Amino acid sequence: MNARVFVNLKPGVLDPAAKAVQGGLHSMGFDEVQSLRLGKVIDLKLEDRPDAEERLKAMCEKLLANTVIESYRIEIGD
Amino acid sequence: MNARVFVNLKPGVLDPAAKAVQGGLHSMGFDEVQSLRLGKVIDLKLEDRPDAEERLKAMCEKLLANTVIESYRIEIGD
Repeated sequence: MNARVFVNLKPGVLDPAAKAVQGGLHSMGFDEVQSLRLGKVIDLKLEDRPDAEERLKAMCEKLLANTVIESYRIEIGD
Repeated sequence: MNARVFVNLKPGVLDPAAKAVQGGLHSMGFDEVQSLRLGKVIDLKLEDRPDAEERLKAMCEKLLANTVIESYRIEIGD
């Protein structure tokens, strides 16, 4: 089975990398960019298990996301 | 309008960061992980423009993705 995990900074956490990208786009003339957020996406291929979702959540909590400053969202595919 | 850009390494490009994450998961007992890819996701809020998609493509080509080693995919929302 396939799964996808999105990891994003929580609202309110400063994101200087996103500000730099936005500034770069503005200086290149892309003034229509009003806001920009950078996140990570992790695509996993997993052995089928009945408790796959629970274990994915554990992977996020323990390694994939820093839950102090990041939130995560799990999408399970086929 | 909102748009989302996915940036991934092209197939065949070495991804040591993904290997490190996969190794970490294995050493924590998550042996069901068969493969893992790391990507970036960029969420943008844009002023409405008729040529928005074309300009997003230009942003990707010029700044958001390194097209030598990365591919990108644009999703336009509402």
